[in-house]
Amino acid sequence: MFNYLIVGCGLSGVTCARLLAEKGKKVLIVEKRNHIAGNAYDFYNNDGILVHKYGPHIFHTRFKEVWDFLSRFTQWRLYQHRVLTYIDGKLVPMPINIDTINILYGTGYNSLTIHDFYDKVKRKDINIQNARDMVISKVGEELYEKFFKGYTKKQWDLYPEELDKEVTARIPIRYNRDDRYFSDKYQGIPLYGYTEMIKNMLDHENISVLLQTDYKDIQDEIKYDRMIYTGPIDYFFDFVFGKLPYRSLRFEEETLNMEYYQKVATINYPNDYDFTRITEFKHLTGQKSNKTTIMKEYAKSEGEPYYPIPTQENKELYDLYKREAKILDGVYFIGRLGKYKYTNMDVVVKEAMELIDEIE
Amino acid sequence: MFNYLIVGCGLSGVTCARLLAEKGKKVLIVEKRNHIAGNAYDFYNNDGILVHKYGPHIFHTRFKEVWDFLSRFTQWRLYQHRVLTYIDGKLVPMPINIDTINILYGTGYNSLTIHDFYDKVKRKDINIQNARDMVISKVGEELYEKFFKGYTKKQWDLYPEELDKEVTARIPIRYNRDDRYFSDKYQGIPLYGYTEMIKNMLDHENISVLLQTDYKDIQDEIKYDRMIYTGPIDYFFDFVFGKLPYRSLRFEEETLNMEYYQKVATINYPNDYDFTRITEFKHLTGQKSNKTTIMKEYAKSEGEPYYPIPTQENKELYDLYKREAKILDGVYFIGRLGKYKYTNMDVVVKEAMELIDEIE
Ligand SMILES: Cc1cc2nc3c(=O)[nH]c(=O)nc-3n(C[C@H](O)[C@H](O)[C@H](O)COP(=O)(O)OP(=O)(O)OC[C@H]3O[C@@H](n4cnc5c(N)ncnc54)[C@H](O)[C@@H]3O)c2cc1C
Ligand SMILES: Cc1cc2nc3c(=O)[nH]c(=O)nc-3n(C[C@H](O)[C@H](O)[C@H](O)COP(=O)(O)OP(=O)(O)OC[C@H]3O[C@@H](n4cnc5c(N)ncnc54)[C@H](O)[C@@H]3O)c2cc1C
Repeated sequence: MFNYLIVGCGLSGVTCARLLAEKGKKVLIVEKRNHIAGNAYDFYNNDGILVHKYGPHIFHTRFKEVWDFLSRFTQWRLYQHRVLTYIDGKLVPMPINIDTINILYGTGYNSLTIHDFYDKVKRKDINIQNARDMVISKVGEELYEKFFKGYTKKQWDLYPEELDKEVTARIPIRYNRDDRYFSDKYQGIPLYGYTEMIKNMLDHENISVLLQTDYKDIQDEIKYDRMIYTGPIDYFFDFVFGKLPYRSLRFEEETLNMEYYQKVATINYPNDYDFTRITEFKHLTGQKSNKTTIMKEYAKSEGEPYYPIPTQENKELYDLYKREAKILDGVYFIGRLGKYKYTNMDVVVKEAMELIDEIE
Repeated sequence: MFNYLIVGCGLSGVTCARLLAEKGKKVLIVEKRNHIAGNAYDFYNNDGILVHKYGPHIFHTRFKEVWDFLSRFTQWRLYQHRVLTYIDGKLVPMPINIDTINILYGTGYNSLTIHDFYDKVKRKDINIQNARDMVISKVGEELYEKFFKGYTKKQWDLYPEELDKEVTARIPIRYNRDDRYFSDKYQGIPLYGYTEMIKNMLDHENISVLLQTDYKDIQDEIKYDRMIYTGPIDYFFDFVFGKLPYRSLRFEEETLNMEYYQKVATINYPNDYDFTRITEFKHLTGQKSNKTTIMKEYAKSEGEPYYPIPTQENKELYDLYKREAKILDGVYFIGRLGKYKYTNMDVVVKEAMELIDEIE
């Protein structure tokens, strides 16, 4: 009766569902949580402040087709993310740019002279093998120690030398004064929130949404032709090759009786305290209130799967599962859990669009 | 695989689901809308104000067991509803009490002398047949004209003499100064809203919730033992005896840049304008904001089924369906649509509790 059973109601699953529904396919989405929107879920908390349940989510993309697609379902608040990082008692822009250096060292570099600085500190002689090498090849050991070492250890409980170079490669080093966290052409927050946008995406007569249900409990009950699976790939195969490791997070939410707690949406704490960062949601959402909610993030090893841990060993384990997945007929694995890969929202939407193009 | 299929995710269905789940039964709720909570659904609108989508809902009951049951899933804001009605350019308390009379007529009655007034105006000689008789037997023709005739006509597009006496019997006439709309012992609004309370009720591993799905589209697909049906009873039987008439509503929501729009939660307009009443949600929810959302209600004949129309003819039609329902094995009809009867929230919860007691 259903053409597609989609496991997971995050952006991957919902994008597939919408596109399939528009092609006349009947779709059932099964989601084990009690809400739609996956990790992009936002909601009004008990103090009436719009918060992101699974950590702050900022949408940014260079893919016009992704921006245009989502813009069918939401207007945007044209927000551009800014992050400060707390180093030696000072708040400095992150990623590192000219101002970061000048504030930290009391220097006066400009865009003509900053090259001299980076040239002086960076290590040119190394063969980049891991996340530590990646950083010191660009900014040397001192900035590595201040900005990256502690943060990475908190976040992964691993030192950068134990992690793939891609982990730190994602964060640029700037030769200008651009203090935006991302430099993608399209950036914003859905004007009424992610959940609202995703609700609009789901608003189609060919889509049914089954919440609070693990797909394994109903897959034999429901007739369907094909499956799109956005859950953890190891769970699909009953962990036959062992569990794929994930890094998890604990989110500590706090509402304060003040208009604003900090000057920007996110402040990183690489070296102080146990949390990695503090986010204040009103900066993201633009909501007005005389209260404000902040969120501290603590990394931990057990719990909900958030970040695939990018080590060589884990990649090899994933490849075993991937091989099994390839053999299956009519089952497609996508999304950050289906592919065991940290992926931003825009990329999961893009990959979902490509998948549907390919199979329908 | 499911012990129960429950049609409708309003308070009737959810109460049954929770009680069954706690008895170890596996339950699937099917809901055609894209949200839980039925007509009690509340949500934060685009201006960040918590509103009731299907008109203002105030919880009030004299049943301790109902209050205690729901209190497992929510704390309460101890709100007591107050309504004013706009008569001859004045705002007076509704239901009619001593102050209503004194403001309207410039008199000085007190609880010792108010009997004289009602005795003078009420019609003692009539045999109460309909909703008009009911009122004039208590307060006479003039107050009937001012408070009831216009409101009833707007609300039902019928004159009170065309409606069952129960319609106006629900509204008391007070011999004291109690200006609360309800006088039940337990009154309140779920502290974080109805949707949040109902989400907590649903939070049980034996409950699955299928949204955006008409039960007819999946009932043959899913294995279940028994059904609890809280949708419209005539739809269940494919309207074989004809459609049961409902009165519908159009809700007009408006957000204003002011702290409060009116002094109380609800003001009735029996004679002026086309809407029946204006509700300002912040009075109900206690939310603080420098904006406020108000809702005007317009009654209409077509649309979502809200109020069963209490006429003799409709009761007879309903009885035909009820007879069919009785014959069925393992299907139970409850709730305001299943029983074609206007029922307050507390009563649907009570009836659901009784049903589960009876069948399990
Ligand atoms: C802390 C944090 C911050 C982030 N910030 C950003 C950001 O700022 N910008 C950005 O672009 N991206 C960000 N991301 C990434 C973003 O969250 C992902 O790109 C996105 O959530 C992926 O969508 P998805 O649909 O693949 O997965 P998900 O959103 O995780 O959805 C998968 C769904 O499948 C469900 N599921 C799993 N197993 C089962 C099962 N057995 N049965 C039924 N359902 C199941 C899960 O409950 C989940 O709801 C962030 C991620 C994290 C962890
Ligand atoms: C304007 C208004 C104001 C009210 N104010 C109050 C108040 O102040 N206090 C109070 O106590 N009560 C109030 N009520 C009454 C209250 O709304 C009801 O008591 C309550 O909603 C009944 O719950 P229910 O579960 O029986 O029905 P509902 O809440 O209507 O739930 C039934 C559900 O079944 C779903 N459904 C129908 N057909 C199908 C189908 N074919 N397949 C799948 N799903 C289906 C519907 O979409 C709906 O969500 C008010 C009612 C209205 C209309």
